[in-house]
Order: sequence, then C-alpha cells, then structure tokens
Amino acid sequence: MTKRNENTTDASLRSRAEKVLPGGVYGHMNMKKLPSGYPQFMETGDGARITDVDGNEYIDFMCGWGPIVLGRQFEKVDESARAVFAKGDIFNGPGVEMVELAELMCETIPHADWALFGKNGTDATTACVTTARAATGRNTILIAVDAYHGAIPWCTPRLSGVTPEDRAHQVRFVFNDVESLKAAVAEAGDDFAAIIIAPVHQPLGLTQEYATAEFAQAARQLCDDNGALLILDEVRVGFRIDLKGSWDQFGVQPDLAAWSKAIANGYPLSAVTGTERLRESATSIYVTGSFWYSASSMAAAIATITQLRDTDALEQMRRVGTLLCAGLSAQAAKHGIDAQVSGPVQMPLLLFGGPGGVKLGELFAQFCIDNGVYLHPTHNWFVSAAHSESDIEKSLTVTDAAFASLNAAIERQDAMAAV
Amino acid sequence: MTKRNENTTDASLRSRAEKVLPGGVYGHMNMKKLPSGYPQFMETGDGARITDVDGNEYIDFMCGWGPIVLGRQFEKVDESARAVFAKGDIFNGPGVEMVELAELMCETIPHADWALFGKNGTDATTACVTTARAATGRNTILIAVDAYHGAIPWCTPRLSGVTPEDRAHQVRFVFNDVESLKAAVAEAGDDFAAIIIAPVHQPLGLTQEYATAEFAQAARQLCDDNGALLILDEVRVGFRIDLKGSWDQFGVQPDLAAWSKAIANGYPLSAVTGTERLRESATSIYVTGSFWYSASSMAAAIATITQLRDTDALEQMRRVGTLLCAGLSAQAAKHGIDAQVSGPVQMPLLLFGGPGGVKLGELFAQFCIDNGVYLHPTHNWFVSAAHSESDIEKSLTVTDAAFASLNAAIERQDAMAAV
Repeated sequence: MTKRNENTTDASLRSRAEKVLPGGVYGHMNMKKLPSGYPQFMETGDGARITDVDGNEYIDFMCGWGPIVLGRQFEKVDESARAVFAKGDIFNGPGVEMVELAELMCETIPHADWALFGKNGTDATTACVTTARAATGRNTILIAVDAYHGAIPWCTPRLSGVTPEDRAHQVRFVFNDVESLKAAVAEAGDDFAAIIIAPVHQPLGLTQEYATAEFAQAARQLCDDNGALLILDEVRVGFRIDLKGSWDQFGVQPDLAAWSKAIANGYPLSAVTGTERLRESATSIYVTGSFWYSASSMAAAIATITQLRDTDALEQMRRVGTLLCAGLSAQAAKHGIDAQVSGPVQMPLLLFGGPGGVKLGELFAQFCIDNGVYLHPTHNWFVSAAHSESDIEKSLTVTDAAFASLNAAIERQDAMAAV
Repeated sequence: MTKRNENTTDASLRSRAEKVLPGGVYGHMNMKKLPSGYPQFMETGDGARITDVDGNEYIDFMCGWGPIVLGRQFEKVDESARAVFAKGDIFNGPGVEMVELAELMCETIPHADWALFGKNGTDATTACVTTARAATGRNTILIAVDAYHGAIPWCTPRLSGVTPEDRAHQVRFVFNDVESLKAAVAEAGDDFAAIIIAPVHQPLGLTQEYATAEFAQAARQLCDDNGALLILDEVRVGFRIDLKGSWDQFGVQPDLAAWSKAIANGYPLSAVTGTERLRESATSIYVTGSFWYSASSMAAAIATITQLRDTDALEQMRRVGTLLCAGLSAQAAKHGIDAQVSGPVQMPLLLFGGPGGVKLGELFAQFCIDNGVYLHPTHNWFVSAAHSESDIEKSLTVTDAAFASLNAAIERQDAMAAV
C-alpha cells in the first residue's frame, strides 16, 4: 500500500482542500480524526471495492456510510438512472417515476399509505416531526439520548450556531429503557406529540443496540395511549434488514417513517411514509426543494427496492454479515483481546474494552486500512449484497493479523511499563 | 394540443398520485392551483423545450423552476456527470471534484475564500444562518417581508406544524426600504447577527424588485457598522445574471452567500461561500448529508460554471430575456391591457393590474400553455441560454394571441355586465 505521506495525491489534495473547504472537508467525511492511514479522497469503486486517489484498493465496509446496499456500479440501478438522464431529469413537474415509486413503497411497507420524497435524511426526519406537530396540535418530541436524526439546528449533534429555541420542545429518554421512556412521556404531558427513534441505537463510539421487542412495543403503546405518534427513523437502517420496516419483526409499525441512504443505492433521495390518518397533515405542511422532483433518483430507487424485494440480497447481507461478525468475535477470543462486536450483523461495530480501548481501536483500524480493508474505529460499518463470502474470508485474514499486531503492541507497552 | 381531460395519461397519473402522494403532489410542483391546461407530469426535455406525458411540447420558461440554465440535456454538463457515474459516484470520502469546484468558486466569486456543498437551497441558507450565529455569538436574523429562503420550519412559508420557537430571533423589514431596514437593525439591537436577503425580491404573485444600489449599499453598511454579517441568498438568482454575485454591480459583496438551483444545470447541488474571517465559524458548525459528497453533481457544476464563464451564455440570456420582456410590454400596450413585466429580464414575471388581474393572469397563462408556451401566472419565470431569438419570436406570437383573447374575454364580460 502507498502510505499517506507528503508525496501522495491524497496529501496534495488535502493541502488544496485546506485552502478552499472549511476544515479541509466538512461533516462526517472529514478524515482528520481517523488514523493517518485513511485516504481523504476517493477515485472509483466497483462492487464491494473502492479505490482511493493514489490507486490503493480496499474491501469496503463503509458503503459510502450507508447508501451503497447492492454494491457500487450495480448495473440494473445505474441503467434505470441513465435512462432518465437520457430524456432529461428535471422538468416543471415530476415524472411518472414519482408515482411508481410511491406505489412501490406503499405496496412494500405495511404502514405506508402515502410517500413523499426529499434529498437528505434530515429532510425526511424534519418533515416527520413537522407532520406530527401539525397532526396532533402538540409540540413536544421525545428523542433518545445520543441519537442522531440529522444535521440542522433542531437535531445536529454540535451546538455551534444553534439557539436554545432550536431545541425547544424536546424531551430525552434512554434507548431500550421503558421506565425512562415512561418518565419522558410524563414530562411531555399534554404536549406529547411524537417519539422519534431509530430502530437500532447507533451512537458514535458506543455499543450498538437493537431495540428490544418489549421496548418497541412499549413505545407503540405509549403513543397510542396518549394520542401521540411514533416516528421511526429508518434513514440508516432501512433497506438493509427488513423491507417491511425494522420493527415489523416485533409486530410494531410506526405512524411515520423517515428513509434515505440505501433507498436508491447511492443516488440522492430520501422519503417519508405515513398512515392514512396523517395524509391530511402531511398535505398541510410545506416542504419542497429544487431537486426533489428529479426522476433519476426515483428510477434508481425503484430498481433498488425491486432488486432487494425479488432477490436474496437481504439474505446475502445477513449471511456475509454473520460470517464477518462471528469471525471477528472468534479472533478476539483466540487472541485474548477484550473486543466486542455489536449491532445488527449487516451494520456491525467492533469496539475494544478497557481504558486503552479507543487507542487499540485506532491501531486495529489503521492496520486494516493499511492492508486493504476499509472499516471504521467508532462508527458502525455497513455490509452490502455485493460482499461475497470470499471478500469476508480475505478481510478476516487481515483482521486476524490486526489482532495479532495489537497483542504485539500491548506486549511492547507492558514491557515499556515494566522498565 | 391534447386538453387535460379524463382520457389523458396526465389525468390517469394524477388519479394514481392522489392515492399515494400527499395532496397528489406536494410542494411547489403541485399544479392544482394553476389553470387546468397545465400538465402535472412531464416526460422529456431538450434545450429550451419540454414534453409532457401526453406528448405535448412546450417552449419552456420555467426551466425546472430555475435549475436549467444552459438548456436541458446540455452535453458538456451531462458528459461530465456521466464520466463520474462511470467510475462510481459516492465513496467514503469526496472525489477530487469537490476540491476543484471549491477552487473554481473561490476564483470566480470575489467574496469567496471557501465553499461548502449541500443538496438543497435550504441546506445552504440554513448553514449561512448557523455560521453567522456561530461567528457573531448573536441570534437575531433580519429577513424581508414575503421573502422565501427555504422550506424547513425556520423559513417555510406555511406555518402548519411550525412552533413559535422555530421562528424566534427573526425581525422583518421591507425590501428596498432603507428606513425599514434601519428600524429592524434598531429592534435587533445588540443581538443583530445577520441580514439574509435575496438580491432580487420575488414574492409569489407580486411585482418583482431588484434591490437598488442605495439599498444594497445601506444593507452592507448597516452590517459593518454593527458587527453583523450580510448573507446574500443567491439560490434563485445566482448563475443567471452575474457570476461575481448579483450585487457586485453595486460594489457590494456579502460575507456569506447561498447558491443552488442553476449551479449544476439541473444536477442536485447547493453551496455556501464565505469570507476568510468566517472560515473558523463555518468549520465549527456541523452540517452534512448522506449524498453531500457525491462527485457527479460537482462535476456537473464545474462544467456549468465554466461554460457560463467562458461563453456568452449570460449575455444570451440577457439578450433573449430583453426581447421577451420588451415584446410582452409592447403587446400589452398595443392591446390596451393593464399588464406589467417586472424583475430582471432573465427571470421576469407578467402581472395584470386591476381587480380582475389575477383572473386575467390565469386566462393568459391558460391560453399560452394550451398553445405550447410554458410560463407561470404568479411565480417568476426563468430564461436559459438555450432559448433562441426564434424561440422568443414563436412565444411572442402566442402571447400576442393570448392578449387578444383576453380583450375578447373582457368585452364579453362588459357585455354581460351591461345586460
């Protein structure tokens, strides 16, 4: 592998970026907090593999931080989008694709009686909250501690430039803690409009938690008992585990759901789905955007969802995700290293325990990136249907060596401490 | 022309849409408030022309409500985007295109020392406001009455689902009224963070107004005198009049500007540009989105801005826009009808005076859409560089007949009144 140093294309681009982009690169794709082996700029991708601007190839377990679910350059999806681009993409009204996609989502997702489309996950979560307030005539929204629901003032995780009023009418609860949720409902009182919650709790750098059936059912019941609405934020998890919704397995359907990321295998799109009784409220709010009616992303979404529905793509993600997670757990045990895999197998995270855990996670990630496996030390990973058993096998060979290198590092540290 | 009736593809799609999309279609592309001649669903477009799902072709003066600036299917732009799609579009970091586009904007736009990119115009205006609050440590934003700056709770024009706190720290002033702006500054007092303003005031259904030099300079001065920031919302106007910014002609540069719509000739992208002293504040806020790092739209933007910079595209828009506006004004005078064209010639609006003005505007628009000219009765229009002198000539033939039909309608009305 070409190491990141001053002679790489990546280093040269970072230096140019530093002059013309805030912080070099802004937002979640700024690599400054990651080990130095991580490339900032990428060049190309195919299937489960990506290549950086210096020509280094990686087996990719981030999938563009979620959007890639069938693999990169997935022909059926790209062909659908190309067909739209070839006739023009943005007109003075939507194309037939908007109707077809809404119909497909209403057929596929049990609670969905209607759908509307935006560009960002934040567009969708914000429209859900606004619709819930319009429908209930109440303002208070219940949100889990450490949950991520987007990056505008009401929800962005960093408070610079945010006013106290931007965060008004929010009550926090602890994910998977029914008593805490009940206390939040009591605090909201008569103003309880909605719970917004992700099906899986994936706080940065912390253990991932799938909601328990008990908790999901309690959330549904508390909403029903209090005339409030359940908003499921499927932006990160949606289209990876269950097309019927990530809480369908618990018999729980939300009133509103926000979707994005994997919905169109990388083409920019988000969606809100809702039940019949919220149709009028969704119609009463005003949400729109200059590019919200583009047909290309909707055509890509139709192709993506159809592929996920009609093939074993979801099963393939479960299969290779299980192999990956089982392999990592076995390796940690074999090397005697305190490390746990958490989260659904399709979007796992490996965290190291103990006071040196963060540092070990960085060393592990650095070893992997230097050896052609792109994973992340603190954010959950993403598996796609393009990941083969052979990709997992190759990756596990690298992670095995990474664990071994950690033991060597720990021994060196112990030796240093003993001197 | 195929009239809109129950046997059209459009009518069939409207009926399907009614079942699966809130309000049939949501947001600004819902056609229900327009005369019945307007198609809701579109099929294809080329140059200055678009075709609806029933095969009716129109000379298009809406340009997708702004994004199309070079004409539809403009090969240099589409080719740039295709080249990116062919290598994959969304990775785990941006491509070289992000750096190149930011460099191009910093070279082209005098105030720009950095740029960041989002997907919606609202992403850009919101990031401007957040950056301004972070930079000044103050909260109050001055906004013109009837101005449109986006469609999330702090700025959306419809208040359903919006809380009072969403609109906190906002003071209104009257566009082009220096005394009103001064009063707003006084009201904001020590908490005056920024003015956000569009270079051209384009309230729905009302006369368009370009800012006067005096007003633009006063806005700049009031910000400077009070340690506040000037945010220019170029989302609608940008890339149509002056690449240096729409107030450069007045010697006025903003501290921050929001861009979108025409930036990539239809590909989804928005941008914020800012001065050196705001770099740190822009770095301090957290804004991001799942698709904000896609290279395809950035490649399209590079091709679009380069084309606008290196050819007479802007001059062509000015030329054909002037022909169109002069022609409409002459026709109104010739037919003795009280109608005025307002706004920059590149984005004009024709409004009819008197108590029956709204109805006349609808009849005029209906006649035009029924005869192959797509304009709008209440929202400003958009001219592109693909509009030829011949397109304008053909369109003016239709508008001339539209004015004549109005006179016939007015005479009928007078005759009815006299009975």
